[in-house]
Parts: sequence; C-alpha cells; structure tokens
Amino acid sequence: MKARDENAVVGDGGANVSLRDPVKVVFTPSGRRGSFPADTSVLNAARSLGVDIDSVCGGRGICGRCQIECSEGSFPKLQINSSLDHLSDKSEGEKKFEKLRNPLAKGRRLGCQALLVNNVVIDVPSESQVHRQVIRKEASSQDIHMDPATRLHYVQVADADINEPKGDMQRLLVALGEEWGLPELTYDSHILRDLQPILAEGKRSITVAVHKQTEVVALWPGFRDKAFGAAVDVGSTSIALHLCDLANGRVLASASAMNPQIRFGEDLMSRVSYAMMHQEGTREMTKVIREALNGLIVEAVSQVASEVEDVLELSIVANPIMHHILLGISPVELGWAPFALATDSSLEILSTELGLRVNRGARVYVLPCIAGHVGADAAGMILSEEPQNQEKMTLLVDVGTNAEIILGNHERLVACSSPTGPAFEGAQISCGQRAAAGAIERVRIDRETLEPRFKVIGSDFWSDEKPFKNALEGKVITGICGSGIIEVISEMFLAGIVSEDGVIDGDLSQRSSRIISDGRTWSYLLHSNVDSNAQIIVTQNDVRQIQLAKAALYAGIKLLMDHIGCKQIERIRLAGAFGSQIDVLYSMVLGLIPDCTLSEVSSAGNAAGTGALIALLNSHSRKIIENLVQEIEKIETATEPNFQDYFVDAMAFPNKTDPFTNLFSVIDKPEQKAKLSSRRQSRGHRQL
Amino acid sequence: MKARDENAVVGDGGANVSLRDPVKVVFTPSGRRGSFPADTSVLNAARSLGVDIDSVCGGRGICGRCQIECSEGSFPKLQINSSLDHLSDKSEGEKKFEKLRNPLAKGRRLGCQALLVNNVVIDVPSESQVHRQVIRKEASSQDIHMDPATRLHYVQVADADINEPKGDMQRLLVALGEEWGLPELTYDSHILRDLQPILAEGKRSITVAVHKQTEVVALWPGFRDKAFGAAVDVGSTSIALHLCDLANGRVLASASAMNPQIRFGEDLMSRVSYAMMHQEGTREMTKVIREALNGLIVEAVSQVASEVEDVLELSIVANPIMHHILLGISPVELGWAPFALATDSSLEILSTELGLRVNRGARVYVLPCIAGHVGADAAGMILSEEPQNQEKMTLLVDVGTNAEIILGNHERLVACSSPTGPAFEGAQISCGQRAAAGAIERVRIDRETLEPRFKVIGSDFWSDEKPFKNALEGKVITGICGSGIIEVISEMFLAGIVSEDGVIDGDLSQRSSRIISDGRTWSYLLHSNVDSNAQIIVTQNDVRQIQLAKAALYAGIKLLMDHIGCKQIERIRLAGAFGSQIDVLYSMVLGLIPDCTLSEVSSAGNAAGTGALIALLNSHSRKIIENLVQEIEKIETATEPNFQDYFVDAMAFPNKTDPFTNLFSVIDKPEQKAKLSSRRQSRGHRQL
Repeated sequence: MKARDENAVVGDGGANVSLRDPVKVVFTPSGRRGSFPADTSVLNAARSLGVDIDSVCGGRGICGRCQIECSEGSFPKLQINSSLDHLSDKSEGEKKFEKLRNPLAKGRRLGCQALLVNNVVIDVPSESQVHRQVIRKEASSQDIHMDPATRLHYVQVADADINEPKGDMQRLLVALGEEWGLPELTYDSHILRDLQPILAEGKRSITVAVHKQTEVVALWPGFRDKAFGAAVDVGSTSIALHLCDLANGRVLASASAMNPQIRFGEDLMSRVSYAMMHQEGTREMTKVIREALNGLIVEAVSQVASEVEDVLELSIVANPIMHHILLGISPVELGWAPFALATDSSLEILSTELGLRVNRGARVYVLPCIAGHVGADAAGMILSEEPQNQEKMTLLVDVGTNAEIILGNHERLVACSSPTGPAFEGAQISCGQRAAAGAIERVRIDRETLEPRFKVIGSDFWSDEKPFKNALEGKVITGICGSGIIEVISEMFLAGIVSEDGVIDGDLSQRSSRIISDGRTWSYLLHSNVDSNAQIIVTQNDVRQIQLAKAALYAGIKLLMDHIGCKQIERIRLAGAFGSQIDVLYSMVLGLIPDCTLSEVSSAGNAAGTGALIALLNSHSRKIIENLVQEIEKIETATEPNFQDYFVDAMAFPNKTDPFTNLFSVIDKPEQKAKLSSRRQSRGHRQL
Repeated sequence: MKARDENAVVGDGGANVSLRDPVKVVFTPSGRRGSFPADTSVLNAARSLGVDIDSVCGGRGICGRCQIECSEGSFPKLQINSSLDHLSDKSEGEKKFEKLRNPLAKGRRLGCQALLVNNVVIDVPSESQVHRQVIRKEASSQDIHMDPATRLHYVQVADADINEPKGDMQRLLVALGEEWGLPELTYDSHILRDLQPILAEGKRSITVAVHKQTEVVALWPGFRDKAFGAAVDVGSTSIALHLCDLANGRVLASASAMNPQIRFGEDLMSRVSYAMMHQEGTREMTKVIREALNGLIVEAVSQVASEVEDVLELSIVANPIMHHILLGISPVELGWAPFALATDSSLEILSTELGLRVNRGARVYVLPCIAGHVGADAAGMILSEEPQNQEKMTLLVDVGTNAEIILGNHERLVACSSPTGPAFEGAQISCGQRAAAGAIERVRIDRETLEPRFKVIGSDFWSDEKPFKNALEGKVITGICGSGIIEVISEMFLAGIVSEDGVIDGDLSQRSSRIISDGRTWSYLLHSNVDSNAQIIVTQNDVRQIQLAKAALYAGIKLLMDHIGCKQIERIRLAGAFGSQIDVLYSMVLGLIPDCTLSEVSSAGNAAGTGALIALLNSHSRKIIENLVQEIEKIETATEPNFQDYFVDAMAFPNKTDPFTNLFSVIDKPEQKAKLSSRRQSRGHRQL
C-alpha cells in the first residue's frame, strides 16, 4: 500500500494523466487490450481480458509464475509517455519473493504485485503462460501446446465457524470457487480424510491439485509448486517412462526396462497362450508389468531427488494385448478372430486401480485402441505424427510382432495391422537376438570375395578396422539384431548369394568358404567366434522368415494404398526401436516399404511414447485422438481377399534387372543417396 | 407368431373391428390411454405411453415383472365389446415362463407377451409397477415410494464382428442404449475386466446392474433377478442393518450388533479422546466398525441363503463422530469448538472404499450431517418423520450422549444438539447399565411406606408378584437401565423422597430403612441381592446426573422454541432406543420434554434407521434430505447466551404445588392418562 502512495506522487507530478484516470494497457503477444482503474494489478487486468498468464498462488506473490515485463514496443492509439513510470515500484511482496525464492531477472515483475500506473504495453513471456509451447526437437514436429489436465491452486480456506456449521470440505470448495472460478468440484474420499489435518498443518492455507477443473485429487499444507506427470509406453519387449514437469512440460527424467512378461513368452501370442492355459495367467502378467512400472516410477523420481507422491498424472500407450493385460483384462479374446477388444475407448482411471504407487489421487489416462491389433500405441503415433494434418500422403509404420500401419493425410486415414511376426526383432532367426551389446547391427559383404565386414553394438569400429579386435577384446559376438538381419540379407542379395526368390546359391560354395551346408540347406557364415567356436550364420530358413515378415508388411501397406486409392506414397515415417535402428535404404532394398523419395523417409523415433507425452501435457489432444480413432477406417487384413495375393507377390526380393545394385557399392557415401533414390523413384523396381 | 395368427381369425370373425384397425387401450390406475396397431404388445404400448410398468428382461418373457390383467372397468369414449377377446392367446413364451418359473395367477398375463387385439382396459397391479409403494407399519407414516438407484437390465449383446473392430464394452453400451434408453453410461474398471468372460459364459446374454441410470456397476451371465440393498444405522452403542429387496422394498432380514468401538471408549467423547491420544486411533476404530458391518452383512444374507455379492447398494446413517470414523476421517475436530465437520454433504462412494465386502460394484450412500453434533442420523430421522410436511408444530428428539433435536413444521425447521451426557443411557449412574437382561426397567414406590416394586428386563412380573422370584431364580439383578432411572427418580420425587431441588430427604431415614447414608450423602436402596449382598441404590449424585441431563435436553428444546417463536409444541416424537423404552408420562414428570397433549407424544422407533431405508429405496428422497439439510436453521447451544439460563432453570423438578402428584397414584390406569394430561396441559407446571 505504501508503494502505491509513493507512485501517486510521481504520477501526479510528472504528467497530465491524473492518477485516477483509467490506465490503458496492451498485452503482448496476445494483443489484448483494455482500460483499468489505476492501481489495478497487472495479473487482474490480464485475467479480466482473458490473457493467458499462469499463477498457482492466486496472486499472493508466492509462486512467481506470473512474471511480466514492460515492453519497449508502442501501439497505435496508445499514448505511452516513456518519461513516466508505467508500473508501481517493486512491492514488499516482490522483495519478499526475491529473498525467499529467486531474484527477479532485470525488467521482470510479478504480475500480481505490479500495479498499473500509466499507459503501458505488457509482455507476457512464454514461461509465464499457462498454455506455453514445448519445443520438440524434430523440425518436422508441431510443438506441444501446454494444457495439462491437473493443475495446482493455492488457497486460503475460511476458519471453521461454530455459528456456521458447514463442513471444512465445503469451505474449501467455496474458496476454490471464489478464488479460482472452479465451481461444482467433486472430490475423492481420501481427500475428505486428509483435509482437516492438512488444514491444521497449513494454518488453513493449502495447495490443491485439481483434475480437469472438476475433481479435487490432492492436497498439501501451505504453498507448493511441484506437479509431475509420467508418460509411459508399454511395449511387448520394453517399457519406457518419461517423467515431466506438468507446469512447463520439461522432461525431467527417463527410465526404461525390459518388459518382465517376457518370462511368460517372448512374443505377444505366446503371452496370450499363457493367459489361455493358466487360470491365473492374466493376473500374474498384470502383476509383473505393474510392478515393473512402479520400479520405473521410483527410478525416474529418484533421478530428480523427488518422491512418487509428486506424480499426479500418467498417460499410457500400449499395443492391445499389453493394454489389456496392464488393465487386468484377459487378452484371450485378442488371440483369435474376431479379435474383440474389451474396449476401444480411452480410459481415465485412478492410479490406485492399477496398483500404481504414485500420488493416491493421480489419474491415469490410457489412449484408445483402434482395433484388435492396432493399439493405443498406434493412437500415440498418430498424436505425435499428425497424419491428419499432412498434405502429403503419409505412411506411418510401427514394426513389432505385428506391424501397425496408418496411411493417409488430411482427407482420410486408414489403418491396419499386419502379422509380420517377430523376425524383424531378431526372434525366429537362428542367430537372431534383441538389440543389445554384442549383437551385429551393420553388415557389408564384398561383391567379389563374399567376405563380410560388420559392426557390433558397443563398438564404434567395423570388423576390418584395426582397433576392432582390441575394442572387442574379451567380449563375445552373440548374434544378429533386427537391423543387422535386414542388412545381412540385403547384402547377401546384392552380392548374389541370395536370388530374387530368396534361395541361397549353393554353387557359390565352390569359390567361398562362407557358403556352408548342413547337408540339407545352405547357409552364409557371417562370423566364427575364435574362442568358443560358436558360429554366427544366416540360414536358408532365416531368409525365408525375413521374406515372410517383409511380405506381410508390404502386403498390409498395399492393402491400405488400395483402400485409399493411392498409387504413390509421399512421406514415410518409421516408428519404434526398429524404425530408429534400420537403415531406410536397406529396408527399401528388401522391399519392406514402398518406393518413396529418400529424403521423405525417416525415423519417427518412439512416436508412440511421444504421443503419450502429448496426451499427458495437453488434455485437448485427448479429445483429438478420441475423435480421430472413431473416424479412422480400420482394415482387417485377415478378411481382405486381396491380402493373400499381395502377400505371395511380395515374398520375392526386388527385380534384379534394376541397375540399383551397382549403386549400392557406394551405399555408405551419403551424397549419393539422394541421387540414388531419385533414380529408383523414377524407374520403379517393384514387382507389385 | 403362431398365436398372433390364430387371434387374427377370431378377431376378424367376431366383430366389426378389423384386425388392422388401431386398438384403443386404457391403463389403470394411471388412466393413460392411446391407440396402437393391433398386435402391439401390452408392454410396448405401456412404455410408449409412459405407464409405470416393471421389466428386467426387456420384454423377453423371462422376468415375469410386467404382469397385467384385463380390467372389468369400462371407460367413457372407449367401446369395449365384452364378447371379444381383448388380448392374444397365451403365447409360447408365457407357457415356457409358467413351466420354468411360476404359473401365472388367474387373469394375469405377461405384458410383453400379450398382444392387443381389441379395445381394452389394462390394469397394472401394484407389484408390476417400478414405482410401487412400500407400506409402512405405522399409520402416521407415509408409504415409501419405490425408486431404487440401482436396477437390473437384461440385454443381448451383439456378437463381435471382425469387420467392425469395436470393443465389447461399446457393444454392451449400444445394447443398453437401444433396449433400455440408457445413453452415455460410464463403467467401473472392474466391469471391463469382467465383461468378456461373462459375455462368453452367457452366450452374449447378460444382466447388467445400472446405478442412477448412469453407471454400469455389475454384470452376470444370462438372466438374473436378484438385487439387494442394505440400510445401516451406525450408533455409538449398536449397529443395525436391514437387508432389502431392491425390486419391491421388502425387508428380507435384519441384523444388529454392539458397536465394537466400545472397547475404545463407552461414549463418543472418549472415542474422540482415543483418536486424539493414539497415532493410529482413528484407523483402529475405523477398522473395527467396518469389520462389524461386514459381519452384519454376512449374517443378514445368510438368513436368506444369499451371498454378499447380491448386495448392490447400501445407505448409511450415523451421528457425526461415527460418520467420520466409519469414513476413516479423524473425529478430533468434532471434539472441540468450533466442532468442524469434514463435510456436511451427502456422499456416494464405492463400497470398496469403505472396505465393505459386498458386490464390488456396490455404491454406498451416506446421508448428510446437519451440524457438528447433529448427524446423518438426525437427517434420517427427518426423512422418516417428515416434519417439513406437518401442519402441527413437531418436536423430534433422539436421545443419546447428545440429544439431537429438530423442531418445526412445513414452514421452517430448526435443529440443535444438546449435551445431555450419557446418564439417560445408564452411564455415569452408580448402578446404571445398558438395557439388557437383569436390568431394572420399571419402578413404583409406595407413597407411604417408600417400599419399591420393579420389573426387570427378561421377566414379565413385578417384583411383588409371586412368580417373580421363581422367574428370576438364579439370575442376579445387575443394575438400572435408562428407562428405569427415569422412573425411579420420578417415583422418588412423587413419593417425596426427592425435593423439587433434587435433594434426597435424609430425615426420611427415620421412617424407612430404604433411605441410607454413606456418612456424607443420602441414597435410596432399591434392591439388595440376597446372594451377593450387592446393593442397587440411587445416590444423590445419580439424581444430580439426571437433573443435568434433563436440564440440557429441556434447555435445548426451549432454545429451539424461542428461535422459532413457538409457545406450544403440538406433537412430539421420541426416536431411538431410549425413546422406545421410556414411558412418556414419566419423561414429563421429570421435565425432560415440554408439555404436550399426551396422545400426540409417541415413540418414533428407530427413525434414523427408517430414514436410511427410505434413502435406500427411493433415490429421490436423497435429493429431498440434501436440500432440507441446507435449509434447516442450525442453532449452536454452546454459543447461545440464553442456553445457560435455561439450563439452570430446568435443573429443578416440576412445581410441587401442582396437583398432578395425586393423579400419579393412578399412573398405571391408562384411562386416566388423557384426563391427567389435559389437566396438566391447561395449568402448566413448568418453572420455565
């Protein structure tokens, strides 16, 4: 109040503008403007104009979220006298804030403390906006617009009054209604249990977490400014979690682990079988996945020296079978036609219902599944990649045991899943393994000598480089991972070891000891471990497995292209771990994906997980994906008459008469890639 | 379909009414009428007219709830040709129903099977109405209008379709929407887990429990027609439960038990102290009360050879402290001013949140508390007694450790609680005890000899009757219960042993050995146990305790009368165990309650429990009490300046100059009571 009086003297003495004249204010970047009585706080002015400005403490100078600055800009019709003070002097509240919390940056003021004195342009910096943008790394991606479902509100609750025998809960609701415009809130019953002790501890000042502006979900005594969320991607092989600050969207920590359900079966169908064959099968698998998730939560919050109680919200993506098991729903109906989901809608449930040890009021948002084999992970991929906003005909592929495939653009979207099997992940391949240290991930085969060179996960050197042996010293090469398999079979094809039909040419054994036989079929010897005599080979059956997998993927894509009437795909995004590791060029050599300008083919990273993150940070995105999922046309490959034909056609490798094989001798020279691609593009090599 | 064709022949041959002419129908008792194409089922006709007619199976001839009969009545403007058949012949469905379930009573038809053939008056008997009345025993009480919150619906769920990859949950919701007009239902997550196995077991036919037409709460395979509810009254001393059929409101079983919290303290305040003094005090008390409640549920369902899973809904009343402890809320704030409730609103929570072992989808409705010492039990009393619908100025009193007092009529209601202490329940009385076998419950004292005679709980005889000794043989008289204390002190007063000021007259020891002294104060010897030498006496302090208790009660009532500006109470209802046992005349002798025409003073039985029952069976009543509780004017005795004065004034016993003492010599002759009362009425004896 003192600061205000001092200003009055300054204002009166220096200008024609009397202190009691209304003050004009323009907010940037919104451009909203209005007139207010002098001494209105900037925060109140902003709020009454609907300017997006953050606050947790409700204008008490505690949270520091409402920081603003006077802008240098001038606006038409706004007379700004730069010789005048525009805002009141720094208040006692601001001095206290600077002492107890952080000094304010130069030019910065607390919007709740700074009062309007003379006409002014006020800039609300990005970090002071509730709906600020979170910048995504990839240039192609839209930023995430912050709009978290759970927010904190600091309130002062009226003292209990013997002559007004209301409940303390009702007093809290009145305070939230009056201070924050949150009427008709509901509350969990644990809130009732917690309320009075917390009111006592905080001397009636408490911080309240409100979910979707409708539910009181957590309480703390006094002021508090910490609300975390977790975005979770439950894959068949691994689970990944990102811990975020719900105030600004920053990823604070990440943690991942193998999916412990692997002990019940490596691939999805064997887990469905386990649920089918064992009375308590689903319950066991549900238990281990929830425990693993709890472990990741603890790991992530430990990284930032926080507590699991700080986690107020989770969002989850998963394929349909993981989705069902995590929710405790038996997946057996997903194991046979008609592959009936228990639900295809999104879910919002209490964390306690999933046995998750986070804040007991935390909500879990589970993205919707699209169809029996197109899961919430595909929904997450759509949220992340936004094919519905693309002009270009866009193909999204997430390769796992089933490939989830989305095709379309702003006009329409179609989706299907295709039974690729686990070969792309290294399963059902004789020397296949998951991508881990010791696995061969890159392969080149000399076109003349048929001698290989390769790279192993954990080493930066090719096997024919001098430091390779030293770097590897003592370590064993254990197998071939998914990307290694694609490359070795591509290279075998390019070197003429494998025919277009996928047959290993046994005649070559006459000029290379790499072509070996077990007496029945031919194999390619990629490596012999000197110490153990263990051989890493690629068998005829391995080639067949990859042919089956790639044929399934390609046939699924072709079906969607048919359905949408599309001859040419303009953009391809490969999602998931496999999509990140694979060399897109090799995936074209083998015919995994259709032709596309190479610069338009790229990895989408963990798009499903990014989708979970978006759903966590922007509650409006939930509505978007829920509506989209209803609109997407779902194609069931199992009942499409053409699928089988496409599948058989796609078994062969691309046409050998195409001259691209020569160009692959320069495959490692990046500057050639664009040229190569455009040539392939123009000619078309596909038999389909 | 066959039955319909046969009817067609009959209809055509016998009348001018062509079969294809519309059929006019009037339903009784609603009087609703309409025209329908011939062969419309009676149920469909009724539904389209909004006639209240029950059905669980949705018109499949399974549940038998929609039974109707042709009425003999005729209606103006409705041409009824009594020589014609009005309804189709008994269908195959009805024959099957009679074979599998019960034969239909004469004249009864299943509304879903009987088709309209010729103009007809259809009677919907009470038991076929959803909103039937449940008759209450007491003549003064309104019947309960059935309108349960939870209802069963039988549906056929569409098969899963590979080309329409929806979730089975969505298929169920579509079926409930189409067959039952229940759109936008939500569902618990356990429903998702249960759904697919139950659909498989029931071959896609399932019965669904829907709460408040908005939430799917339970599922069973096939058809099912069993839905129970439980109304619970949690008192400080005892807990009582009534198990009801939610279809017709019948009380199927009752069970009660001592409140096991007694081990933590006999009265409410000692339990609050326990919570205050022990870290885990509330948790312990919450646990034992919930366990006791679970025990009662098991006991009640066992009585009808049923399962706890059949219980789909509960409603609960309790005083504020029991209410808080049951909900797991610490009662300590209720232990001191300002007596702040955690909440004063009603609650609807999951049974699982209270650790109740009933159907996991069961909901618990907890009636609202009115003020810090006027609980959900008082709200139940109001629901049962409906003072808001009375012309007469009505006083409701529930006596416990605190007396909960409601006064008013259709114009307004006021409420308070008064700290009577536990004396009326036999506590803090030297030989007091709870009402149980062996307790003295009735007392008469000879005005001349000062010799007592009494009755003991468990015996039908007075102590001066011959069979008394035999009946009592071997049993010890253990103490005096609440009603016995009121009577013995009244009789002591009437016999002149106690003065108006409440002093025992020691001079009387000269003419009666019943007046004894411990050297400091005088007592009255009511009984000596011959075997044990144990004496049952009424001490000077006992008289003081009753004076304090009755003064508190009377002062509370007086405060409410002041507040409402009422000089004369026209109707008094005494609720609870004490209210049932006490002789209202003696309660007037002592001045517990104000004067009132004796015929207008009566016991309300367990009015709180009845209120719980009403809330269980009629969901609209919940809205009524929720609104009423907001409107009731709450008076806090502790802060009312007049309370202390009223309290002091009410300490004395009524004026001795009043001639009613003579009339009490005929106290046991009922025909004198009305006369007595009207005399007292006209003169007024009260000092207040």
